[in-house]
Amino acid sequence: MPAVTFLPSNAVIEAESGETILDAARRAGLSVEVPCGGKGICKKCIVQVISGDIVREDNPLMDKSMLDDGYAMACRTLIPNTSDVRVRLLSDVENEHGVFSEQSEDMASIDSAILPSKDDLEPMVKLLSITPVVPIAGDGLSDYDRLLNAFSEALVEITNADPLHPEIKIDLPIRLLRSLPELIRSSPSLNVAYFVDGAKIRVIDIQPILFDAENTAIPRLGIALDIGTTTVAMRLVDLATGNILAFKTDYNGQIACGLDVISRINYASKPERLEELRTKILATINELIESLCQEADASPAFIYDMTIAANTTMVHLFMGIPPEYIRLDPYVPTVYDVPFYTAADLGINICPDAVVLIAPSVGSYVGGDITAGLLCTSLAHDSEDIYLFLDIGTNGELILGNNEFLMGCACSAGPAFEGGGITQGMRASTGAIEHVDVDKNTGEATYNVIGGKKPKGICGSGMISLVSNLIRTGWIDFAGQLERDRPSASIEINGRSASYIIEPKEDIRVVVSESDIQNIIRAKAAIFSACYLLLKNIGMGFADLKGMVIAGGFGRYLDFDDAATIGLLPKLKADQVHFLGNTSVSGAHFALVSARHRRLLNETAKRITYIDLSTDLGYMDEYSAALFLPHTDASLFN
Amino acid sequence: MPAVTFLPSNAVIEAESGETILDAARRAGLSVEVPCGGKGICKKCIVQVISGDIVREDNPLMDKSMLDDGYAMACRTLIPNTSDVRVRLLSDVENEHGVFSEQSEDMASIDSAILPSKDDLEPMVKLLSITPVVPIAGDGLSDYDRLLNAFSEALVEITNADPLHPEIKIDLPIRLLRSLPELIRSSPSLNVAYFVDGAKIRVIDIQPILFDAENTAIPRLGIALDIGTTTVAMRLVDLATGNILAFKTDYNGQIACGLDVISRINYASKPERLEELRTKILATINELIESLCQEADASPAFIYDMTIAANTTMVHLFMGIPPEYIRLDPYVPTVYDVPFYTAADLGINICPDAVVLIAPSVGSYVGGDITAGLLCTSLAHDSEDIYLFLDIGTNGELILGNNEFLMGCACSAGPAFEGGGITQGMRASTGAIEHVDVDKNTGEATYNVIGGKKPKGICGSGMISLVSNLIRTGWIDFAGQLERDRPSASIEINGRSASYIIEPKEDIRVVVSESDIQNIIRAKAAIFSACYLLLKNIGMGFADLKGMVIAGGFGRYLDFDDAATIGLLPKLKADQVHFLGNTSVSGAHFALVSARHRRLLNETAKRITYIDLSTDLGYMDEYSAALFLPHTDASLFN
Repeated sequence: MPAVTFLPSNAVIEAESGETILDAARRAGLSVEVPCGGKGICKKCIVQVISGDIVREDNPLMDKSMLDDGYAMACRTLIPNTSDVRVRLLSDVENEHGVFSEQSEDMASIDSAILPSKDDLEPMVKLLSITPVVPIAGDGLSDYDRLLNAFSEALVEITNADPLHPEIKIDLPIRLLRSLPELIRSSPSLNVAYFVDGAKIRVIDIQPILFDAENTAIPRLGIALDIGTTTVAMRLVDLATGNILAFKTDYNGQIACGLDVISRINYASKPERLEELRTKILATINELIESLCQEADASPAFIYDMTIAANTTMVHLFMGIPPEYIRLDPYVPTVYDVPFYTAADLGINICPDAVVLIAPSVGSYVGGDITAGLLCTSLAHDSEDIYLFLDIGTNGELILGNNEFLMGCACSAGPAFEGGGITQGMRASTGAIEHVDVDKNTGEATYNVIGGKKPKGICGSGMISLVSNLIRTGWIDFAGQLERDRPSASIEINGRSASYIIEPKEDIRVVVSESDIQNIIRAKAAIFSACYLLLKNIGMGFADLKGMVIAGGFGRYLDFDDAATIGLLPKLKADQVHFLGNTSVSGAHFALVSARHRRLLNETAKRITYIDLSTDLGYMDEYSAALFLPHTDASLFN
Repeated sequence: MPAVTFLPSNAVIEAESGETILDAARRAGLSVEVPCGGKGICKKCIVQVISGDIVREDNPLMDKSMLDDGYAMACRTLIPNTSDVRVRLLSDVENEHGVFSEQSEDMASIDSAILPSKDDLEPMVKLLSITPVVPIAGDGLSDYDRLLNAFSEALVEITNADPLHPEIKIDLPIRLLRSLPELIRSSPSLNVAYFVDGAKIRVIDIQPILFDAENTAIPRLGIALDIGTTTVAMRLVDLATGNILAFKTDYNGQIACGLDVISRINYASKPERLEELRTKILATINELIESLCQEADASPAFIYDMTIAANTTMVHLFMGIPPEYIRLDPYVPTVYDVPFYTAADLGINICPDAVVLIAPSVGSYVGGDITAGLLCTSLAHDSEDIYLFLDIGTNGELILGNNEFLMGCACSAGPAFEGGGITQGMRASTGAIEHVDVDKNTGEATYNVIGGKKPKGICGSGMISLVSNLIRTGWIDFAGQLERDRPSASIEINGRSASYIIEPKEDIRVVVSESDIQNIIRAKAAIFSACYLLLKNIGMGFADLKGMVIAGGFGRYLDFDDAATIGLLPKLKADQVHFLGNTSVSGAHFALVSARHRRLLNETAKRITYIDLSTDLGYMDEYSAALFLPHTDASLFN
């Protein structure tokens, strides 16, 4: 079979029969983004063929000049068995990767105000010191009997209860039974880490208590994890104190298989691809665990407890459950409230019998990231005033309510705010234009680039900045059309469409098309109309809100004036807006260490009324009304 | 590295550095028995070196003539890296193997009187048909919610109980959650196989109910298994009817690592050897399952339930638990009453979440084979008369009692009754001399061979037959010394010791030494004195017994007159003796299909008072008194 060489890394792999360039690149371990799920639509996987034979599928989205220059969509181009092939990858996921981690300032300054209070400290996994009776010939007690008796007695003692009800079962993993003979003879006393789940008690680990050691308590660690569609955030926590020992974020390893949840669901339609997605997120998680443990000089074997917050699709993919019914009418996912599984069940490399709690989801697109995120605010349980909680990501997820009612919905903002669907769009990492000023007279741009280097593309906040300044300077109309009557070197007109040139220099040229601007308009329209409709559902408007709580990575770069100018959000006073950063991982942390918050989490999830906007007849009207700059009803933004 | 060729099979393997012949033979997949656990004592692994260099360890048990003839103990002979080696295996385990299976007549005629009654039919794994609500947009129910609701309602319905207590947890294996989206949409109704363990309910399997099928019930199969030290017996059972679909016996794959439990415990002293033993018995079990399923045209995936009876050591080895404390003072095994594990936990290739029940043991050497075996008699629960239950195997296990008291003990008969420790001893398979008559005048032997072919050795019942007839004809004295004063062609005297020649022809010569006879005497003395002492403990004698129940493979070949003549058992009337064959597998079958018998099993195990003869000061006296033919007190056998 022919060899395929990928530039710039020079990775080489032998092509398999009838394989696409995309498949070969993935097998070679290279990340290629396919936001559309490999359907030949997003053009993100375009490669340049340097040499060798390839077979392109006919695709109207590729114009003749691109074909002449050797460009091809990796997902729609086969490698025939005729010659070796050399291609150049144009996407740069690997390079962005490192930069993103450097830039996670929000994680470096975790707000102590939204850390759980010491008063609440009560992890799911508890410790009991026991002293089994010594082995005596003829007393009829096995090692297992001696362990169970001592453990049951100690349990009864701490609960001041009657002897354990005989129906209550204590589960001992076979791994621990196998090591029990040595363990129970290694020390007179043992520490037992255990977990009570209703009438079931599960032993998680047993460690000898070494009395010559300074500290007789075994380390008992936990992990709080947020699995975002794009980013994964993790905290390693000391369960005895609730303190963070280390924290880190990384890209979700699945992004090479689609940028948004719909693309991932499409990608997962074959069992082997579902398994690929599961393996990819597991690899991300296990690498983060290893890295955090190294940093904190801790052993993964002592991680007994893990709490995960993720959207409904991420939960399904992480667990290996086919996600397709999430997006098929009548939109019934396989699981909202996941029962407890062990780390071994799920493939996580910590203590194999560690308990894994997954925050409950409430709808196809309002997931555990939101129910956990609400733990970071008093909105749902302590506030009589009504707030709107908004988590802006690839999906916008909204909760409206107070301590009496909670309504939730989601809208598909699409990946535009994260650079997806924009010709030269990219995430907010080095080389991204993140702010654009527009000259009122000439229409020309001045801009800032993240990292201060040459621009490689434009990120979501850059697009919002650009569009709002085009509005302010009058170079765009309320339908999103660029000015055609007043000439400007920055506006290029091609027949019926036009483009705005941010940077004209050939080698670093950055251009935004009207079609790109339409994508931003559609994204902001989706979010605004969802907010508007959720309020309207209970006869309210933005004026009735005490305030808004903005969560998620995108929120932290958002200029509120710009957001109001384009019609993404209403105009609010500074003290009405609260930025909480990654509430999903903070909420997971709350649930990890506090029994009160675990109760709140479940109660909150049960209280949320999920509204499916896709079946709401009014949504399309509101959405259409919002497809303008700022809106058909501009008074909403005064 | 040198090649090692094993005759007669011509198997060839490349030797590893510093490896023994035994290790190489095992890696080549050949069975070599080492009853002593490879300590250079039993001489069962002797091979003949045809060509090539070997390095023998000095061993006083190998005399010069043997060394000159090229014999070597495989366990104590290294293969240096100098030349290829050819050796002839003298043991013939592989050949016996097939014969043994052919000859398992006891299994071919399972006594229906000791099969569970249909009235008792209640397996652990039950079936419920459920019809989950159809998926509806906006009702807030996931697939998992729909499944749990329908299942809980159906459970409540059959038990006529209030709604399930919230503390009761229903465990759904992650495997089933992963297949749930397809499963719950494949048919309006589902069959759920489940298992109730106290306050915990575990779902074992879910199958769609196909209404176009003739039979809407899914097959629900179970396995009853006896893991003997030597033999493994298995029945495949239809849990809906309790009927046996297929049954089979095979050798325990561990016999190559030691013939009795003590040798196995010694062999298991290193973790990798414990794992080897575990893997070997698992292979035996999984092969039997495959074979039974083929015979019954059934799928292992529908085997939801398994009940295992085995002695304490076999339970530890099968579960991978280090067994060494079973035989170390104070004789506290790691587990008597094994909690429920799944087939996947244990490595059994059936439905991965199948429940495995292991019959409880009561002492180091009175195991679940005995507690299960007692289910085959009314002794323990229905009889006011006192019986002695005796399971003669490599270990003799005894239970004395009635419906009011039960006392149990064990004695190490050693492998003599199974051919171990006898120079030309072998198991009761083709080629074994199983009966020997002795001429009163000449002392010469006439004998029967199993399979009617040329003799290869002598089995346990052959030894008992020989010794009892030597006693009857006066050719042996009560200490086990062969007649020296009257000359006989059959008695060969070498200095202070003598041998009895059963077959003098050179190529098929079979000789029994006085030392072999001493081994039989020690075996019978161990069993008789254990019986005697157990009775004496409560101030009774054999005359107080209503009868004896004889279980185990050896029992079925035993001549009761011969047994009394050598002093193995007291003289009893025919109607006082009950042969039940393999009560261990029958007991497992009872427990598999009947809730009443599972309760009895646990109750019985709790009621047995275990007496450790090794700590009983009177035992050595009784044992010594029994080291005669028949006994120092011959009146016991009149």
